[in-house]
Amino acid sequence: MFFQLKTVDEILKIIEGFEPLEQEEVTLDSALGRVTARDLVSREDLPGFARSSMDGFAVRARDTFGATESLPVLLEIAGAVAMGTLPEQPLGPGEAIRIATGGMLPGDADAVVMVEYSHLLDEATVEISRAASPLENVIQPDDDVRKGDVCLPGGLRLRPQDVGVLAGLGLVVVPVVRRPRVAVLSTGDEVVPAETDPGPGQVRDINSHTLAAFSRSLGADPLLLGLTPDSFESLRAQVERGLREADTVWVSGGSSVGTRDLTVKVMESLPGMEILAHGVSISPGKPTILARAGSKTVWGLPGHAASALVVAEVFLVPFLRRLSGETPGRRSFSGSVKAVLTRNIESAPGRDDYMRVRLSDEDGRLTAEPLFGKSGLISPLAQADGLVLVDRFTEGLYQGQTVEVMLFRAG
Amino acid sequence: MFFQLKTVDEILKIIEGFEPLEQEEVTLDSALGRVTARDLVSREDLPGFARSSMDGFAVRARDTFGATESLPVLLEIAGAVAMGTLPEQPLGPGEAIRIATGGMLPGDADAVVMVEYSHLLDEATVEISRAASPLENVIQPDDDVRKGDVCLPGGLRLRPQDVGVLAGLGLVVVPVVRRPRVAVLSTGDEVVPAETDPGPGQVRDINSHTLAAFSRSLGADPLLLGLTPDSFESLRAQVERGLREADTVWVSGGSSVGTRDLTVKVMESLPGMEILAHGVSISPGKPTILARAGSKTVWGLPGHAASALVVAEVFLVPFLRRLSGETPGRRSFSGSVKAVLTRNIESAPGRDDYMRVRLSDEDGRLTAEPLFGKSGLISPLAQADGLVLVDRFTEGLYQGQTVEVMLFRAG
Repeated sequence: MFFQLKTVDEILKIIEGFEPLEQEEVTLDSALGRVTARDLVSREDLPGFARSSMDGFAVRARDTFGATESLPVLLEIAGAVAMGTLPEQPLGPGEAIRIATGGMLPGDADAVVMVEYSHLLDEATVEISRAASPLENVIQPDDDVRKGDVCLPGGLRLRPQDVGVLAGLGLVVVPVVRRPRVAVLSTGDEVVPAETDPGPGQVRDINSHTLAAFSRSLGADPLLLGLTPDSFESLRAQVERGLREADTVWVSGGSSVGTRDLTVKVMESLPGMEILAHGVSISPGKPTILARAGSKTVWGLPGHAASALVVAEVFLVPFLRRLSGETPGRRSFSGSVKAVLTRNIESAPGRDDYMRVRLSDEDGRLTAEPLFGKSGLISPLAQADGLVLVDRFTEGLYQGQTVEVMLFRAG
Repeated sequence: MFFQLKTVDEILKIIEGFEPLEQEEVTLDSALGRVTARDLVSREDLPGFARSSMDGFAVRARDTFGATESLPVLLEIAGAVAMGTLPEQPLGPGEAIRIATGGMLPGDADAVVMVEYSHLLDEATVEISRAASPLENVIQPDDDVRKGDVCLPGGLRLRPQDVGVLAGLGLVVVPVVRRPRVAVLSTGDEVVPAETDPGPGQVRDINSHTLAAFSRSLGADPLLLGLTPDSFESLRAQVERGLREADTVWVSGGSSVGTRDLTVKVMESLPGMEILAHGVSISPGKPTILARAGSKTVWGLPGHAASALVVAEVFLVPFLRRLSGETPGRRSFSGSVKAVLTRNIESAPGRDDYMRVRLSDEDGRLTAEPLFGKSGLISPLAQADGLVLVDRFTEGLYQGQTVEVMLFRAG
């Protein structure tokens, strides 16, 4: 059984080939953070009527032409537009009508004079001291969104303002892609549940909790299958359960070679399961495994919590985005910052090394301090703000060099 | 009734003076995104025992001194360490014991020789071809976290890896600051619920939905009070209800001056309510109001959805972080990117202008395109990736200039 190491790009290519999950409908107030399943088309114009964008007087623009401070125009006040109602009658020549921001323009009015350029002579007459251009301070019926236009594209993870567009258009039932369900299980005879006190040689289960939190932070729905001892039968049963109940199963191996081999054997034994990758030229994370059966996938992740999380950042972010139907590249600007390295980083060529770094703001200059330390520790990752890639064509990065830092997501 | 406009910095200063909410306890699997209420101290060493970080042989380092490929050292194989168990007996002189990554070192062993530097002569004898230094490939009992150390500081919003540290240390009940409860209500006679079809002159309620989504995206717990007509009594009743049931009430006024005045009158009428700000030198967002009664606050926000969201980005992000007990400045690196302006931006001095921009990656150079357009529209905000500040001491920014873009959070 020999597998060639895959490169990071090859794994990302495989991920791109997966299909997004099916669509479902949610209400507006559950739409935040969900991904639109298709382009959303407006069934109407927004705002739908000519609207004032200022407090003042609705006028016929031509009635104000030539008005200046020294030679104002006099208009007859024909009443006031009540908010949220149809003005009772069109505006006659030489007339003005009071209007508040957001009010509907009466027929034949085509501009609004700001209250600052008006002066009341008496209750029935207003002096206008500045000419209004046609459409001045007027929002046209389709200025915001036009009927039939795509108001939000498919593949978009909805932000508060996107929810606002949907509310404005009355699109209160939103077609979104179903959340991925992620079954998480940990193996390793040395691993005990986090709530127990480990005996000699035992460690608590970290990976179930970090991977569940990680998947949740990306809008997925984790299913904690818990701990499985290093036995073929029990691991196989749990992976089968995960495949039944979830879209993807994430097995984080114990740290030993024996456990990792077991994970591969279990995958090989499952009907219809194709092993797509067994080993990746990435550090940390080399023992990563990816297998697929139909639309379901199994990931074998490193046992070390810190390594498992690096693999998660590099592969499981694009993987969950793919399942979620998110268009790649859209609004990915928040993912990284540029910073200046405080120390040299050495790296072996031929593999992609991800270094943990801590960011500091030094006199307005962002610096990235590499966090060295023994592999297998979790605490340096808690001190880190992100990862710096030293790719497989590079032997290292230099102190003083500006690098791109992939930021860890906030909780 | 005259209020001087407050500056943005003055409002931020007021926000800093508010107290974080009280603490509560959550289980580990609900801890993601919550803020630690105090420094968390480890009750034990992690990993708690000397652990191998490699697959190989546990040895006494001094038994391997001088070993080279041409002159290897022979050691007697004394068995294997079973994962998750206490090795049965200490290592004798001249002995080696098989050990897997994560296994517990037996007494008197102080190094691990990687399997790559070992060669089996027979079942009982291994040849070691490289000297091991003391502690080589060994994780010490307190290498990850030391008993009594602060493993996570207070005021930290927990990420997946932070949850991992807690799991590793068995801290499965986590003291966090309670989520802020935010009562959201919209006013304005022209506003109708999002699920209805507006009549002439009416518009759907956008703000309730964007502000609720916004608060949720920051880990708060929104309470939708819905729409309130422009009447003193009904607005007052709803604000009172919000103050009873939530920590803060966000009233987004209708767009007209009349509605805004009403909001102020209601605040003035409430017992113990102190108006801290009425008008801010910010654009958009000038009519912002902030009032306080005891530990509760009321924000009066602009009626235009786009303006309300800018105020939310500028003030309600730090405000909710303050209530949540989050330490300012920690891990705020994801908040902005630098980009090159594609057009000039003009701005009036004396106020802080926040311009919407759309980001593009042009040949590896990030550009920010200002999104101009009439005020009061929501769709440009849905096209925008973030905001650029033109501060009150600046009259404009130039095309080609590098600017800081405050990124909108992902959904």
